[in-house]
Amino acid sequence: MISKGQIKLITSLQQKKYRDKTGLFIAEGPKVIQELVASGVRLHSLFSTETFEDASVTTTIVTAAELQKISALTTANTALAVFEKPEQTVPHYEGLTVALDAIRDPGNLGTIIRLCDWFGIQHLICSTDTADCYNPKVVQATMGSLARVTVSYVDLKEFLQNAEVPIYGAMLQGTNVYTAQMPTNAILVMGNESRGVSEAIQQQLTHRLTIPQFGTSKDTESLNVATATAILVSEFRRATGR
Amino acid sequence: MISKGQIKLITSLQQKKYRDKTGLFIAEGPKVIQELVASGVRLHSLFSTETFEDASVTTTIVTAAELQKISALTTANTALAVFEKPEQTVPHYEGLTVALDAIRDPGNLGTIIRLCDWFGIQHLICSTDTADCYNPKVVQATMGSLARVTVSYVDLKEFLQNAEVPIYGAMLQGTNVYTAQMPTNAILVMGNESRGVSEAIQQQLTHRLTIPQFGTSKDTESLNVATATAILVSEFRRATGR
Repeated sequence: MISKGQIKLITSLQQKKYRDKTGLFIAEGPKVIQELVASGVRLHSLFSTETFEDASVTTTIVTAAELQKISALTTANTALAVFEKPEQTVPHYEGLTVALDAIRDPGNLGTIIRLCDWFGIQHLICSTDTADCYNPKVVQATMGSLARVTVSYVDLKEFLQNAEVPIYGAMLQGTNVYTAQMPTNAILVMGNESRGVSEAIQQQLTHRLTIPQFGTSKDTESLNVATATAILVSEFRRATGR
Repeated sequence: MISKGQIKLITSLQQKKYRDKTGLFIAEGPKVIQELVASGVRLHSLFSTETFEDASVTTTIVTAAELQKISALTTANTALAVFEKPEQTVPHYEGLTVALDAIRDPGNLGTIIRLCDWFGIQHLICSTDTADCYNPKVVQATMGSLARVTVSYVDLKEFLQNAEVPIYGAMLQGTNVYTAQMPTNAILVMGNESRGVSEAIQQQLTHRLTIPQFGTSKDTESLNVATATAILVSEFRRATGR
């Protein structure tokens, strides 16, 4: 049984404003929920049509119709959890860090978080105008990767000013990524979907990387930002083996 | 002015059944339309709220409200065109060919077509159960790349039987792509979003390629198929320089 107050709270979390205000976000489906719990994200409340396998988790049993009322999905899964957003820590990191400059599309952000997980990148730095990683669409698209990749929202300019490693940016004009020598410790900056890396951030780059175009048409659009991130992260990994 | 019959025809083209029956598909927005015209795709009819720059194209001027009626977009652009689907030709090709085995998501197909365009891959081969590239969502997502990449739907098993080049497949278990030697002429097979390359097609592979996982969690989902395609195509390009 869910109260009216709970329904109101949970559905409000589909909006960033209320996620920011309450420090809460929702995740749906047993797999995603269990991965977030296992990674130490603090559970606020859990609603499920079935008893949860993990007995340590207190579950409110609800009907499918009740679950649909609070779900952000067109067709609800069997469980919905409310979590507390983890505290933001910009850690002392090493290896490769990916930084996003105003990535606006939640789908692109979700894809990038998932590929960071695959490539063992633990910290993703986002400018404050990047899409919210606690947007329900991102939480679902990342398939639990959000439990393993720490996402921090920062003043990107200030963050890069304090960086002690080379700062690489994905640019249309730069060094061919296939011939560039990439270091083990670096930051890779990926820019906005339409305008690329912003002017201010461009000035902070120490290196500019380009994925060469093999097609010969001048009409070809640049690669989608998630696609380009995949290729560049893969190139850093092949170069450094870590 | 649009007739009722035209409205009925055009809106029916949002369904594959009617695209197959009529051999027609729709594209929206002046940029996409002009690229398709320029690449030789035959125009059937064109509706626009403004006169088209290209005087060779006969335009029916319509109101924004009329255009919205026939549009597949939530907010219509300024023009919608009906095109004839190009004849399918499985050409004599060389270099790298990408083959898709039951890719179901139109968004993934659109991303793959766009990256083929960037990497100069002119022929994309699809199993007959792959998403339809003339789906309005794919046409819009490819941003005109559909004008430069020829997409053919074939019996993939039969197609691969007749292949005279090595057949590489993207697999979870295979040769590390960073250490593999890739040839200039090859087919790269990418499998379905959930089950990967099908059993029957696996038997036709001459090589299995894997993108190594750097993260250490066993819970990590495999890379999204469009992301994996980007990384593998990039690796073929870096290896062969063409």
